[in-house]
Amino acid sequence: MARYEQIAGDLRDAIVRGDYPIGGRLPSEADLAVRHSASRGTVRQAVALLAAEGLVGSRQGARRIVLGSERSQSFTELHSFAQWARSMGYRASGSVLSSRRRPCAPAEAVRLSVEPGEEVLDVRRLRRLDGEPVLVEHTVYAGWIAPAVERLDPECESVTQELYESVGLVFAYGEHLIDAVAAGAGEARLLGVRRGSPLLRQRRTTTSQEGRPVECSDDRYRAGSVTFSIRNSTAANPLGRRAGEPG
Amino acid sequence: MARYEQIAGDLRDAIVRGDYPIGGRLPSEADLAVRHSASRGTVRQAVALLAAEGLVGSRQGARRIVLGSERSQSFTELHSFAQWARSMGYRASGSVLSSRRRPCAPAEAVRLSVEPGEEVLDVRRLRRLDGEPVLVEHTVYAGWIAPAVERLDPECESVTQELYESVGLVFAYGEHLIDAVAAGAGEARLLGVRRGSPLLRQRRTTTSQEGRPVECSDDRYRAGSVTFSIRNSTAANPLGRRAGEPG
Repeated sequence: MARYEQIAGDLRDAIVRGDYPIGGRLPSEADLAVRHSASRGTVRQAVALLAAEGLVGSRQGARRIVLGSERSQSFTELHSFAQWARSMGYRASGSVLSSRRRPCAPAEAVRLSVEPGEEVLDVRRLRRLDGEPVLVEHTVYAGWIAPAVERLDPECESVTQELYESVGLVFAYGEHLIDAVAAGAGEARLLGVRRGSPLLRQRRTTTSQEGRPVECSDDRYRAGSVTFSIRNSTAANPLGRRAGEPG
Repeated sequence: MARYEQIAGDLRDAIVRGDYPIGGRLPSEADLAVRHSASRGTVRQAVALLAAEGLVGSRQGARRIVLGSERSQSFTELHSFAQWARSMGYRASGSVLSSRRRPCAPAEAVRLSVEPGEEVLDVRRLRRLDGEPVLVEHTVYAGWIAPAVERLDPECESVTQELYESVGLVFAYGEHLIDAVAAGAGEARLLGVRRGSPLLRQRRTTTSQEGRPVECSDDRYRAGSVTFSIRNSTAANPLGRRAGEPG
């Protein structure tokens, strides 16, 4: 972790603890540089990161306004259903419904940066929170990671953690599309809801630290089980809105 | 706009144009400093901003990997339904369904940073894309902005733009909760869908440049009309997941 990321972490913790209350102002860069024994350039990078996360506002004079204090999830907590559940005090479980290799479709080839027709691993899982089914996951893994995924216990709690422990894989970048869809007959049965009732759909592509796509997934949550939260600003807007594709 | 934000904008454009292709590497900070006639510290801030947006990866040696090239929406495009629609080549229209002042509820008081019971303006609007109803908006405005909102034409296309032109208001920070809900009878009628069918719900609080909350809104999109996209990384994760509240 770079020095500026450490300082950003310290400042984030201080904001979460309430040392710098919402609506108040952060100390100036010069003051923060003294407190953290760092150069002003390093402090500026740290504060730019907090601004990008929407925790502090853009500069008003020498200081920045504190805008938020909610602890945001780490990328890993967000990516890993099990780690997220644990951090919230829930018990996560899951089971593999099906797992098979097949040639990838053209759209998947683009998302996974592989050749069309190359072999991928297609896995469906049902995930539970405190024993209650909340999520049907449909993940397509690039061929290079398929053997490591196939070696996992089908009841394995955290795929993310197991892949890290077995082959050192770190999920590092994500691209997410979020919308609402009606439950099909199969999903309705698995999630214990009526057919046609609302599901929150998250389609994502996740990439390793080296920028290599690992998986693309279509995850469907029972309505009411999960909410996504996003913070944005004029300085950094990772959020976009798209018109729905027909069909 | 600070110098580093200008440089980030230039780099973003270059990535979108394909000058720096996905999977390739950005030039080193030293090279970028020369090309943009800026200090390395300024270039580092610019690149940190792109990393926070997930456009480039974390540092591998002296250079960074280009991860994305999709043009992300500006905050204003995202915030303004009309400006977003225009940028996508659609025609936006809308009409006010109801507009009334009332005392604010305790939860709204927290979100708007006002006293419980203080007067707020409660507005419901129906928004259309190319004439088709897609969104029921329910926005609660803080009392200080209420007179400016009440002066707007009820068929006004862009509330965001009109408030900027009439009172100089700039929306600058947002906090969003996204989930799926079932359409109630009223929404179903307005949006031309069946009762109980899926809607994509976006609850947001938007703040002025000074960090002052302006509005909180509960927006419900017809399923299939809109998708939200989010990019995140281990270095900057503006995205979170929450368990649904009961009810």
